[in-house]
Amino acid sequence: MTIKDARTPASAQSAAQETPTEAGKSIGWHKAYVEGSRPDLRVPVRQVHLTNGRSVTLYDTSGPYTDPLVDTDVRRGLPPLRENWIIARGDTEEYAGRPVRPEDDGIKHTAPRGGLRNLDAVFPGRPRQPRRGRGGAPVTQLAYARRGEITPEMEYVAVRENVSPEVVREEIAAGRAVLPANVNHPEIEPVIIGKRFLVKVNANIGNSAVTSSIEEEVEKMTWATRWGADTVMDLSTGRNIHTTREWVLRNSPVPIGTVPLYQALEKVDGKAEELTWEIYKDTVIEQAEQGVDYMTVHAGVRLPFVPLTANRKTGIVSRGGSIMAAWCLAHHKESFLYEHFEELCEILAAYDVTYSLGDGLRPGSIADANDEAQFAELRTLGELNTIAKRFHVQTMIEGPGHVPMHKIKENIDLQQEICDEAPFYTLGPLTTDIAPAYDHITSGIGAAMIAWWGTAMLCYVTPKEHLGLPDRDDVKTGVITYKIAAHAADLAKGHPGAQEWDDALSDARFEFRWEDQFNLALDPDTARAFHDETLPAEPAKTAHFCSMCGPKFCSMKISQDIRREHGGTRGEIEAGMAQKSKEFAEAGNRVYLPIAD
Amino acid sequence: MTIKDARTPASAQSAAQETPTEAGKSIGWHKAYVEGSRPDLRVPVRQVHLTNGRSVTLYDTSGPYTDPLVDTDVRRGLPPLRENWIIARGDTEEYAGRPVRPEDDGIKHTAPRGGLRNLDAVFPGRPRQPRRGRGGAPVTQLAYARRGEITPEMEYVAVRENVSPEVVREEIAAGRAVLPANVNHPEIEPVIIGKRFLVKVNANIGNSAVTSSIEEEVEKMTWATRWGADTVMDLSTGRNIHTTREWVLRNSPVPIGTVPLYQALEKVDGKAEELTWEIYKDTVIEQAEQGVDYMTVHAGVRLPFVPLTANRKTGIVSRGGSIMAAWCLAHHKESFLYEHFEELCEILAAYDVTYSLGDGLRPGSIADANDEAQFAELRTLGELNTIAKRFHVQTMIEGPGHVPMHKIKENIDLQQEICDEAPFYTLGPLTTDIAPAYDHITSGIGAAMIAWWGTAMLCYVTPKEHLGLPDRDDVKTGVITYKIAAHAADLAKGHPGAQEWDDALSDARFEFRWEDQFNLALDPDTARAFHDETLPAEPAKTAHFCSMCGPKFCSMKISQDIRREHGGTRGEIEAGMAQKSKEFAEAGNRVYLPIAD
Repeated sequence: MTIKDARTPASAQSAAQETPTEAGKSIGWHKAYVEGSRPDLRVPVRQVHLTNGRSVTLYDTSGPYTDPLVDTDVRRGLPPLRENWIIARGDTEEYAGRPVRPEDDGIKHTAPRGGLRNLDAVFPGRPRQPRRGRGGAPVTQLAYARRGEITPEMEYVAVRENVSPEVVREEIAAGRAVLPANVNHPEIEPVIIGKRFLVKVNANIGNSAVTSSIEEEVEKMTWATRWGADTVMDLSTGRNIHTTREWVLRNSPVPIGTVPLYQALEKVDGKAEELTWEIYKDTVIEQAEQGVDYMTVHAGVRLPFVPLTANRKTGIVSRGGSIMAAWCLAHHKESFLYEHFEELCEILAAYDVTYSLGDGLRPGSIADANDEAQFAELRTLGELNTIAKRFHVQTMIEGPGHVPMHKIKENIDLQQEICDEAPFYTLGPLTTDIAPAYDHITSGIGAAMIAWWGTAMLCYVTPKEHLGLPDRDDVKTGVITYKIAAHAADLAKGHPGAQEWDDALSDARFEFRWEDQFNLALDPDTARAFHDETLPAEPAKTAHFCSMCGPKFCSMKISQDIRREHGGTRGEIEAGMAQKSKEFAEAGNRVYLPIAD
Repeated sequence: MTIKDARTPASAQSAAQETPTEAGKSIGWHKAYVEGSRPDLRVPVRQVHLTNGRSVTLYDTSGPYTDPLVDTDVRRGLPPLRENWIIARGDTEEYAGRPVRPEDDGIKHTAPRGGLRNLDAVFPGRPRQPRRGRGGAPVTQLAYARRGEITPEMEYVAVRENVSPEVVREEIAAGRAVLPANVNHPEIEPVIIGKRFLVKVNANIGNSAVTSSIEEEVEKMTWATRWGADTVMDLSTGRNIHTTREWVLRNSPVPIGTVPLYQALEKVDGKAEELTWEIYKDTVIEQAEQGVDYMTVHAGVRLPFVPLTANRKTGIVSRGGSIMAAWCLAHHKESFLYEHFEELCEILAAYDVTYSLGDGLRPGSIADANDEAQFAELRTLGELNTIAKRFHVQTMIEGPGHVPMHKIKENIDLQQEICDEAPFYTLGPLTTDIAPAYDHITSGIGAAMIAWWGTAMLCYVTPKEHLGLPDRDDVKTGVITYKIAAHAADLAKGHPGAQEWDDALSDARFEFRWEDQFNLALDPDTARAFHDETLPAEPAKTAHFCSMCGPKFCSMKISQDIRREHGGTRGEIEAGMAQKSKEFAEAGNRVYLPIAD
């Protein structure tokens, strides 16, 4: 397989210090690290340098790719940041592991169908043996937190979130937050997901039977994290599922999630009724050994719930949900995921794989929102959450879907009540069905609201939702839109420090520090490009006006004049207004500066 | 001046029946009319023809441009739809009117500065004399409604909104809704703005001293209404203000709003302190005679409020607000707009110009939201609303701005209380400051929420906000984003019939009627283009899957199988499930269809 740039994916480069951005300008920030209580605990941040000499520190998800001092190579994979922490705990052991079989990549002796698309694609990185808890013992952050232990991972996220490690431990111990970190994924920079912390954003990638390649998926993953994705789900459904996932995991600085059911279905050639617990279990172990950090499990789709979807406008719209529904009906049996849930818990606990209990019956249209089927499943997810906790498995709950604004709050309130405040992880919700090609926006509205009300992580929706597979631009648009929703929610929740970012940008705006506005923007490249479209000249970068109002009418300039002419504080202005109005007149009452040129 | 297509602006053509769209396909809807109680009362609708033989009727703002039977010519202007209705009322008279002077287009004997950019730009349409209420009597829809009269305009919007004319009359009479319709703008298709009706969207256009031409503005206006703008504000601030406005008015099927203060300031060469009541009044009459339907008046920016902005992070960000603040300080006098407000009411009443009382002190950053300055002005707008009503002037109240989600509801609740439920007309609000280039999204979130809670009209924000002047693409993106926010709010408010649109599209989605999905989409062109990117082949238009999941895994297909195999209703499924599971197995348990090719 060919990688455009073996050292650093092109997608990440534009973020690196002093390297050209898409807009061909250099940008004023660099990667820095905040050190914790030990030298091997260095938390990355984005340091934005302002033209007024100050600097602003922002949360950074882009990984080593944006650190010019780190020599990255997607063929080698990222350095195993957590390896020593995991080994030092002494509660895990390496073992031979499950042999990788051709069918793991969808290759049938029966029906080869071309086989592995590019055989040289097998990940060449250093050989590794999988690791699991000694004797299958739980090695989860939840188990440690309950024992009162503060792990390096907990301290790492505490530094990232600017809270005390004890707060992190408490939230994890209470099940109100999860820290997805498979012992076989030592490359990740730990992240915490819980309503007490910054709202997180997940980006979905994944090839399908119809389109896209391994290379594209690795590229999309680095691109998504460069723009701020906190986790990435690999939803591949076509050939090369195992190999694509290996490349993604070894090169991902963020936790990776999957839906094992998709790969299991590939192994039975897409025939739902041929699925068995054994095939599913084998797939889960395969993925756990690779290092998948969280898995969507649709164990809440129970046989008796399927008829509840009969009168729906759009039936079952979750892939996993519909597959399990078809299986239940074909055998007229209860879901094998529901029946074997405790056994599944034991497996996940031994690798510290986090549950993302899937909402297989989520509404796929405004008409189906908050219906009996959806809430019946939610109540089951509550039961399963209780069981998972008994096995010390970290657990998130997935949420809808398509929900009109007035029905959104009921979702988060019910989920928090039924699931003992386990982190809610929602897709949107989309607040209307009428705008295909703009569902990042229809869902961004619902996402911001439900995050304000307590959702811990938002699964992004791209402009291609309902229409096609997202390309690189769609991934960026989806991530940026959801970072907006997440930050708007952080502000509304009064998250400490959240507003500092807004304040820094607004100060820059009021003081006409254009370069600082661009560098502080969620998307500096596009902000600069838009400004330059109408006022490309360099003087415009320091001009006290912009193309919207032109040199006259600039309201903020007038505000500055008022402040300058009449004193800074309200008291000064009130006191001096009458007298100073005369001087103001003599000063020429300039409400604008001449065009700089 | 050159118009790309003198018969129909290119921007509008793509909407016409069977004419090529941007994507080069013909689209399955056509312009139709619903007739009222009289032959000259024909309300345009968009009739979408579905492949299942049904059709869906949607609200249409695109004007005669999308009617192939109407011979439009931007040089002649649109037919004066309302002329006979206005004349028949017999309460207005034509008069010589105010002579148009060079300075109306910003041409100074003192400083010509190039003068009129294109002299041939003077609107060539049929000569017309301005009209006003006999002896200056109020000829407003509010006055008629209070007298118990249901005008043709009221019946027109009643048909559009699918409510009884009496409901329209009551809402207008109570001041809870406005129907902006200057007697000198007979070309418009009447629209009602009030919380009891569909949420409306305004699009801003306008050239500036820095960029853009008359032609571009006329083009943007038709383009904005083609995508769904209910009103358009011409915020021109450069040369040719009068002439640009004339072209826009004579060709606009929707009400046009302006901020007269911008033109008045041009007349005094941008020196705020040189503004006088006489210059402002003359400008208002000039614009009223042209046919401006509503005017933003910043009469709430009072001298004592200016110091309240001193400690703000971003001071005063409203152009009009900062101009009036500068004037107040320069003269240390109370605002001439506040002092002469009653006289202004008499003028507007004689033309039926609707007030849009401007929020000159709106917050320009998250930090300044809901502060003392903002709410002090709002209380003043409440006083002015009461005065305006005494003069039978229809009145809207403008709102913020930059407001975090948790502070949005306070804005609408306070406005409704203080302003006797007068229609609220808000800009966004933007829910965070950190995303320049994406402020259509930061504000679309706030817009949807505040509209759900009662805002009657939303002023769009484009991706260029804070960065530059919107081009054609930005106008489209802004309008589509705000149509989403408005419709999401209509759904959340339970507006009768609003969900039919969502249901029709979701039915099409569930039944894989791809062409119907495209034609029902807010933006059919882009939806179709996105789909074709990954599955361009024609069979894909009827395929029972899409590129997201491929032929396998299609959840909705599985739902259909379940329904088909187990009966349609919940009862049937429950009854037959056990027995039918066997047949289902025999049927092959197909969870997907083979790829159509």
